Amino acid sequence: MLIVHKYGGTSVGSLDRIENVAMRVARARREGNDIVVVVSAMSGETNKLIEYANHFSKTPAKREMDMLLSSGERVTAALLSIALQEMGLDAIAMTGRQAGIKTDNHHTFARIESIDTKAMRRELDEGKVVIVAGFQGVNEAQQVTTLGRGGSDLSAVAIAGALGADACEIYSDVDGVYTTDPRIEPKARKMDFISYDEMLELASLGAKVLQSRSVELAKKLSVKIVAKSSFSEDKGTVISKEDEEMEEVLVSGIALDKNQARVTLRQVADRPGIAAEIFSALANEQINVDMIIQNASTDGTTNLGFTIPQSELERAKEVLSGFDKEFGSADFDENVCKVSVVGVGMKSHSGVAAKAFSVMADNNINIEMISTSEIKVSMIIDQKYGELAVRTLHDAYKLDR
Amino acid sequence: MLIVHKYGGTSVGSLDRIENVAMRVARARREGNDIVVVVSAMSGETNKLIEYANHFSKTPAKREMDMLLSSGERVTAALLSIALQEMGLDAIAMTGRQAGIKTDNHHTFARIESIDTKAMRRELDEGKVVIVAGFQGVNEAQQVTTLGRGGSDLSAVAIAGALGADACEIYSDVDGVYTTDPRIEPKARKMDFISYDEMLELASLGAKVLQSRSVELAKKLSVKIVAKSSFSEDKGTVISKEDEEMEEVLVSGIALDKNQARVTLRQVADRPGIAAEIFSALANEQINVDMIIQNASTDGTTNLGFTIPQSELERAKEVLSGFDKEFGSADFDENVCKVSVVGVGMKSHSGVAAKAFSVMADNNINIEMISTSEIKVSMIIDQKYGELAVRTLHDAYKLDR
Repeated sequence: MLIVHKYGGTSVGSLDRIENVAMRVARARREGNDIVVVVSAMSGETNKLIEYANHFSKTPAKREMDMLLSSGERVTAALLSIALQEMGLDAIAMTGRQAGIKTDNHHTFARIESIDTKAMRRELDEGKVVIVAGFQGVNEAQQVTTLGRGGSDLSAVAIAGALGADACEIYSDVDGVYTTDPRIEPKARKMDFISYDEMLELASLGAKVLQSRSVELAKKLSVKIVAKSSFSEDKGTVISKEDEEMEEVLVSGIALDKNQARVTLRQVADRPGIAAEIFSALANEQINVDMIIQNASTDGTTNLGFTIPQSELERAKEVLSGFDKEFGSADFDENVCKVSVVGVGMKSHSGVAAKAFSVMADNNINIEMISTSEIKVSMIIDQKYGELAVRTLHDAYKLDR
Repeated sequence: MLIVHKYGGTSVGSLDRIENVAMRVARARREGNDIVVVVSAMSGETNKLIEYANHFSKTPAKREMDMLLSSGERVTAALLSIALQEMGLDAIAMTGRQAGIKTDNHHTFARIESIDTKAMRRELDEGKVVIVAGFQGVNEAQQVTTLGRGGSDLSAVAIAGALGADACEIYSDVDGVYTTDPRIEPKARKMDFISYDEMLELASLGAKVLQSRSVELAKKLSVKIVAKSSFSEDKGTVISKEDEEMEEVLVSGIALDKNQARVTLRQVADRPGIAAEIFSALANEQINVDMIIQNASTDGTTNLGFTIPQSELERAKEVLSGFDKEFGSADFDENVCKVSVVGVGMKSHSGVAAKAFSVMADNNINIEMISTSEIKVSMIIDQKYGELAVRTLHDAYKLDR
């Protein structure tokens, strides 16, 4: 089997931990697998370098940031290669460029355009463990680029896709994806399998494990991800295409997202296109509008309500101030949260949403907004009821079994 | 004017010092010069990375070491570029590869084979300050290589040569080359000029300023070096081709080298070629034999004496053990040192050596071995007289004026 391993910053956060990673890789190799390892910078390194840059400038040039930040992963890759060689394994460390990772031109947030696997294949064919510095590539002009937060996961998934690997094992300090946040519901259970789409909807649960960009790429390239802990022997959670077995599971998880703010614009002028204008302006500022509710009122105006990430609220206020002639008043409420019930089983079973609503009613929790998709029911509620809602829903769908 | 600046590890050892370097570079640029800056890693970084590697292996692969060690210079280059941009200057940081530095295949001790100056020229033509990560290049297979100790000086001199720069200013924490070590003779005087050849002979004086490899390369490429301190406004020492003015100076400096050991082989079999065999064997182990004395004895054997660096003594003993049938006994004396009187003026003036010998005699210092070149007289003496010899010679040649 050809397996891609990816180790995050915490997993390579000290020399002892790198040694531990080397032992895992050596074991997998000695079991007869071909192994490519993608590594992050040692934890703390990237933030240290960002602080250094900010000492000189609040807005350092992105091209220079990429040269700066790409150095941390190279260090880890070289050290891991040295550790493996000392254990008697053939190993070779490669930079993003040497591994053939070509990106577009967007410094600090580049997209992988293609991977020329020739060099990696040659080393694998010679029986070597290939270690690739994650998070980085080169653009057409051979300038170093980086892929943004979570970029090493992207490197790993893209490499697994390009090489047609049997699996991409993403190691962190969490041993998989849980039915909900165990800090909220101690009965939360680690899942064995989850589909790409569920994982995307459960982003807030999986954020510590891997980011949405990587899941989307894995789905696109049909790469089987295994989310595992580098500190335990747990077999982790497989994230892959949904199969029949998965569809028998009605609900797989409950997610809570506290990074929510509700915006209500009252007495919006009832002229065609005004909503579109406002939402385009927000989109241009990269503000993600989630749920939208529009109520016609009796005086020829409407009320327009929507949710955005709390962290984008200040920028949203600025954008909206440009439209202040178009509405009467604006309300901003940060005391809300979003609870989501997710499961591919919903596609073929009805009654999931109804049950969620009745659980909320039984607990006297007012649902302020609702949005549903094929595999998800999301509800905006008062933030103080968030944890209660998660626990009662987790119980109601019997997720602890 | 086109000027190459090179800043060593101490000069960029902290964020404040990088800021200080940025101000120097900015001033030079604003005076209308085109500037290329070559930087080392922040002091301590390279040693930290070597320690990391040695945690895993006492003999880490050299290829991986190069990927590891080349990261420090990239960090400095990116930070300096960010600092200059914040001051309103156009600047661009380049890795060794991006600056077009091609080396041979000797990882951790590569030789620069050529420099493709196209990329640097393009950025200079656009008015940018070009900042190059020192100490590194790429080989033909596009693998990262490093140039060994003092490698950033080599990068700077080679770039100055390739670009036909007017000067290569090498900044360290020392403000130039002195007539002798000021810790031994407080009256030591900083020289304004010195020739390449004198600098090479005074290697032990200049070691903290720049290494012999860089001086040799500068001589070969006719690059004018200026050794300066990044912590003062002193105009430093110019190292260049000798000119008439220099030749009027009889003696320019006195060097003391304590890293000396004397080896005496007694009763060496008097057969043709035996000395050559021994010295070839030493050379094969990279042991530098300096002075050699051979005395015929009366019993058909000879005594063979020579000096080597003390730090190579253990390896030399090993080599010599392979020849133990060829001589009676071997003596090793580490309590010696070499005092050298250097000056291009010796070429055209006689009496320099005679004066040195009489100064030693006046002070009852026994000269154990002597070697001379066109511009140098070196004497091996008892180590305890080293400092005294330096001070009396410095006085005798009136070097404090």
